[in-house]
Amino acid sequence: MKVVVSLAELWEVRRFLNSPVGLVPTMGYLHEGHLSLVRAARQECACVVVSIFVNPTQFSPTEDLSTYPRDLERDLDLLEKEGVDLVWTPTKEIMYPADFQSWVLVEEVTKPLEGAMRPGHFKGVTTVVAKLLNAVQPQKAFFGQKDAQQSVVIRQMVKDLNYPVEVKICPTVREPDNLAMSSRNAYLQPAERQAATVLSRALFAAREAYQNGERNANRLRKTMQAVFNQEPLARVQYISCADPNTLQELDLIEDHALLSVAVFIGKTRLIDNILLP
Amino acid sequence: MKVVVSLAELWEVRRFLNSPVGLVPTMGYLHEGHLSLVRAARQECACVVVSIFVNPTQFSPTEDLSTYPRDLERDLDLLEKEGVDLVWTPTKEIMYPADFQSWVLVEEVTKPLEGAMRPGHFKGVTTVVAKLLNAVQPQKAFFGQKDAQQSVVIRQMVKDLNYPVEVKICPTVREPDNLAMSSRNAYLQPAERQAATVLSRALFAAREAYQNGERNANRLRKTMQAVFNQEPLARVQYISCADPNTLQELDLIEDHALLSVAVFIGKTRLIDNILLP
Repeated sequence: MKVVVSLAELWEVRRFLNSPVGLVPTMGYLHEGHLSLVRAARQECACVVVSIFVNPTQFSPTEDLSTYPRDLERDLDLLEKEGVDLVWTPTKEIMYPADFQSWVLVEEVTKPLEGAMRPGHFKGVTTVVAKLLNAVQPQKAFFGQKDAQQSVVIRQMVKDLNYPVEVKICPTVREPDNLAMSSRNAYLQPAERQAATVLSRALFAAREAYQNGERNANRLRKTMQAVFNQEPLARVQYISCADPNTLQELDLIEDHALLSVAVFIGKTRLIDNILLP
Repeated sequence: MKVVVSLAELWEVRRFLNSPVGLVPTMGYLHEGHLSLVRAARQECACVVVSIFVNPTQFSPTEDLSTYPRDLERDLDLLEKEGVDLVWTPTKEIMYPADFQSWVLVEEVTKPLEGAMRPGHFKGVTTVVAKLLNAVQPQKAFFGQKDAQQSVVIRQMVKDLNYPVEVKICPTVREPDNLAMSSRNAYLQPAERQAATVLSRALFAAREAYQNGERNANRLRKTMQAVFNQEPLARVQYISCADPNTLQELDLIEDHALLSVAVFIGKTRLIDNILLP
C-alpha cells in the first residue's frame, strides 16, 4: 500500500494503477461504514484508492472542524488490512492554497435538509469531491447511504458535469443497537450514546407504519416525532419524508421515499435515514 | 476522423485514443486561429479531439447567441484536413438537460475586464470547460491568447480543481492588417471591418511606447485611448494595463503586463490584447 501526500506523488503512482480504479473519499477516523465502502471497491475494482482529508470548506465557522476526530496511524493500519492500493492524505495547504478561488456548486438538491441547516456545507462537499475525482480519475466512486443528501448531490454533480465515473452508494452500517456508524459518535457521552438510538428507532417506527400500509407523509413524520418526544436528550432539527431524487417533501408516498432526520443529542448533531420501500 | 454527438458515443471512441490526448474546445465557425490550436495539438499529442459547441450559458440574454455564426459542414472539412481524430458536437440538450443545476465558479480573476462587462459569462465558460475536460479527459487542452482573461481563468480553474491537464495558450492569429481573428469579425460591414484595425493599432502603439521605455500604466492607457479617439466608429468599453496573472490594474509595469481592450465597432463587440514585454 502506497501512501502519498502531494499531487505530484499521487499522479506518479496513479499512472501505474490498473482500471477500473475505485475511489473511496473519507475524512478519516475510519469505522466499519468506511470499511464497507473499501470492501465494495475492493470487490468491484482492480485498484482501490482511499483519500483521507478533513475538508475545512464543508464545515461552517460554528461547526466542529477543530475537534473533528483524527487518527491517521490507525486509519492506515485498517486500510492496509483491507488491501487498499493507494492512500492519498493531502494537507489543507495542498487542497486550498492561498490563491484558491474555484468552487463547484449544485443548486436545487442542495437547498433543503442538510443544505438548509448547514449553509455552505455542500459547496465545500461538491468542490472537494470534484477535486478528488479530477485528481484521482477513478472509474467508480463509493459513498455511504448514511449521508443520503450527499449521495443525491454527488450523483447530480457527476451527471451535470459529465464525470465518466460510476457513483456507488453503499448501505448504512449500524451498531448492534442500530445506531448508524459515524465518526461523530465518538463525541457522545455514555447517556447520550444510549439516547442516540432514538434516530433509528424513529425511522424504523415510520417504516413499520409504511409496511402496515401508511402512505401519508405527514402521518409518517408524526410517527417519527412521537418517538423523539419520548427522548429528553434529543433535540430534533428536521424530520423529512421526501422524494429520493429531488429531495422535495412529499404529501403522499406513491413509489419511493427517503425518510431522514437530523437531531442534536446534547451538543452532537447526528443524522440518519432510510429509503422506502 | 470520427464525429460523435452523444456522451456515450464519445466515451466509446475515447477509450481507444492513445495518450497524450489533446483537446481543442471551440464554438465552431473555425478560422485560422482555431486551426493554429489544432496544429499545435497535432504536433504535441498522439490524438486530437476538437469539440464544437456554441455554449448558451456564456451568452447573456442581450448577447448574440441566436446570431452567432455556424457552419458545421465547413468546420468538419477543415478539421478533417488537419488530421483531427475525433470531433464532438454535443447538442444543448446533451450539455444542459432539463434538470441541470451544477456550476463551476472561479472568483477573483473573473471579476474585472470581460467579467465586469459580461456578467455571468465566465460562469458559463468555466462550467462548459469543466464539462469538456471531464468528458474528454485530455492530457493537454489548447486555448488562444486572443481570449486573454479566459486563459487566466481556465488556468486558475485547472490548478484549483486539480485537473491533470496541461493548459497550452497559443498566440493570437491576425489578418494581414493585424485584426485579430475572431468568428465575430463576420458581423462587420466593410467600413467597420476597416475601422476594426483600430484595436491592434492602439495596442501596438502602446507596445511601441513601452519599447521606448514607458513604464507608467496610465500613460500607456492614454496612448491607446488617443488611437481610439481618431476612429469615429469605435466605442471603447475598457482599456486595461494589468498584471497578467491576477488581472489587477497596474500603476507601473515592473516586469510583465497584459494590455487588453474591448471595443464596439458599430454593434459588434471586439476584444484584443498583447502581453508585454
